[in-house]
Amino acid sequence: MVQSFFGAAYRQVEVGQVVRLAQDTPLRLESGVEVRDIPFAYQTFGQLNDARSNAILICHALTGDQYVCGVHPVTGKPGWWDRMVGPGKPIDTNRYFVICSNVLGGCMGSFGPKETNPETGLPYGLDFPFVTMGDMVQAQALLLDYLGIKRLFAVVGGSMGGMQVLEWSVRFPARVLSAAVIATATRQSAQNIALHEIGRQAIMADPQWCEGGYIHQRQYPSKGLAVARMAAHVTYLSETMLQQKFGRNLQDREHYTYGFDADFTIESYLRHQGMSFVDRFDANSYLYLTRAASYFDLSSGGQKNLADVFAGTPVRFLVVSFTSDWLYTPAESKRLVRALNAAAADVSYAEIESDKGHDSFLLELPVFDETLRGFLDGSARRLGGL
Amino acid sequence: MVQSFFGAAYRQVEVGQVVRLAQDTPLRLESGVEVRDIPFAYQTFGQLNDARSNAILICHALTGDQYVCGVHPVTGKPGWWDRMVGPGKPIDTNRYFVICSNVLGGCMGSFGPKETNPETGLPYGLDFPFVTMGDMVQAQALLLDYLGIKRLFAVVGGSMGGMQVLEWSVRFPARVLSAAVIATATRQSAQNIALHEIGRQAIMADPQWCEGGYIHQRQYPSKGLAVARMAAHVTYLSETMLQQKFGRNLQDREHYTYGFDADFTIESYLRHQGMSFVDRFDANSYLYLTRAASYFDLSSGGQKNLADVFAGTPVRFLVVSFTSDWLYTPAESKRLVRALNAAAADVSYAEIESDKGHDSFLLELPVFDETLRGFLDGSARRLGGL
Repeated sequence: MVQSFFGAAYRQVEVGQVVRLAQDTPLRLESGVEVRDIPFAYQTFGQLNDARSNAILICHALTGDQYVCGVHPVTGKPGWWDRMVGPGKPIDTNRYFVICSNVLGGCMGSFGPKETNPETGLPYGLDFPFVTMGDMVQAQALLLDYLGIKRLFAVVGGSMGGMQVLEWSVRFPARVLSAAVIATATRQSAQNIALHEIGRQAIMADPQWCEGGYIHQRQYPSKGLAVARMAAHVTYLSETMLQQKFGRNLQDREHYTYGFDADFTIESYLRHQGMSFVDRFDANSYLYLTRAASYFDLSSGGQKNLADVFAGTPVRFLVVSFTSDWLYTPAESKRLVRALNAAAADVSYAEIESDKGHDSFLLELPVFDETLRGFLDGSARRLGGL
Repeated sequence: MVQSFFGAAYRQVEVGQVVRLAQDTPLRLESGVEVRDIPFAYQTFGQLNDARSNAILICHALTGDQYVCGVHPVTGKPGWWDRMVGPGKPIDTNRYFVICSNVLGGCMGSFGPKETNPETGLPYGLDFPFVTMGDMVQAQALLLDYLGIKRLFAVVGGSMGGMQVLEWSVRFPARVLSAAVIATATRQSAQNIALHEIGRQAIMADPQWCEGGYIHQRQYPSKGLAVARMAAHVTYLSETMLQQKFGRNLQDREHYTYGFDADFTIESYLRHQGMSFVDRFDANSYLYLTRAASYFDLSSGGQKNLADVFAGTPVRFLVVSFTSDWLYTPAESKRLVRALNAAAADVSYAEIESDKGHDSFLLELPVFDETLRGFLDGSARRLGGL
């Protein structure tokens, strides 16, 4: 399906397969709002076997989308996890049927704030209902119903994708054989709530945000969104990696210019990250998705003991963290692993040495590949083979 | 002296004592620009002794000013280091003569971008010349000439103030008996260059910045500056401290509002930090001072060996870092200490246990107080008493 797009150009882009969910029965969101007949965009890779037992759902992170592998229709670059997903790769599409959907609240074809509000004929903007991680997973479950898949061989995701994996394991334990929870936490920390608030404030500070109504006003908060992205991007890396890759190198010059140009390579790199993001992502989606992440807390504000949340779970877990990840630290993963152990769950924990920060889960890291491949192999063995 | 002020109100504020420097001989900045007859604001506390041997220069950090103690005329709150400086305090004004000046490029009475450009009759804005840490220190040295102080008993500073302390020790080793270098580094790291770039981009993204000309256009980039401050403020704290102090506490409510209000206490706190900063700081000064910090590198882009920079130094050094400071890490301080040791310098290093992040140097921390007090006592003994 081709859809009109946000960003400077408001151009048309291919968003792939789109199904309409909740046509008969409305989907009740955690906020209490009910939504009906909503678009949901997804891609599949590989073949579903006859037993329908080889489906892996991959949940994307904050700014990812359904183009987990192959060529991305907007950027023209490989999908966000192309190195992990494909024929012969750790998530082997010769063996598994891979599904990846654009999250609820997203901007790549799924029901999100840039969709048209039938009541006004205009894009929802801030009239879009608030969604949570749980809501995202409810919608994914409806997609699985539509695809006729009763149980997932695995659900896999990193960062905000990992939060969805956790919601899957809690909400639909009978529909999940195994869950790979990567570089995430059981709740958004105070620091991460703060970091997301900065991004939202940067967007909302831009007068071209138009109180969320920029699309029908033919404006776009490019500068605010670029600042938000720059601020977030630094948190995806590590100090060590930044020092090694950029250090104090100057950008195409030998001396300071004594000015506000991007004298340093790291400055030029960051500006580029900001500007290229604006072309592919919707500012309101950024607001809604970061809000959903802030609201994420498996213990419901401490009302529930984390071990009780997983009591009796039949799911086989792999928890992965990366040593230099300061956004979702190994300490957070260990907290989850302790709770899973206390709940007598089947859990493996891999703390992987990496100096590349939070983004490690997206980068070339053979130990991580082997870990994930082995975990999926083990799940296949439990199933008596695929 | 009362001076017209920036911020939403453009109100008049007291900036204390102001001297005009470089009246006869111009001050040549590192950029090559020469400036003449520039205002320089400072405060003194305590009495200079007859031998003129008890003067301590305190260098303030990025957003500090000359009101190191006492009541701040803009905020009405205690000065930024009131707990450290005063009668009977570790920097004891009954014993020492304390000088603190507003940095070159600042906005509290010293020569900075909001001063009037005599050539246009308008505030300098982006016509203000770029200044470096070295330039700041040159101006401070002129102030000491004016005050008739040949040698400082000590120069003390944290964060960007620590960079100035290092410049003092390198540029004027004969004028410094002892130097306390706190929570800083010998050069701005790639990550810190990146973080400052985000702040600058947030300010420049605000249309009310007016390409730096906001003052004479009666505008003010409050939103951009607030975002810059919020982004910076998070880096002054630590994850542990944020989790302990704020966690996932909600702000005056029991449930999520499913909206973009400040549901979480940490969000409300951050917004307050952003908004209150705007009232007391000039946006262009923020640009210039962060630029000066980015340019700071004692090794001149690796051309100089750090140990050679300190070769033969007579200065007595104290280097202090805080365990949870991720902006200027203990690793950076140890790098400095190694270089000082390699240069056979007199150096003590104190890595102080704290979970309060970079801001530890401003907060109640008895071990730090004792360390600094002891260092100054030791310096007095070397001098044969004060």
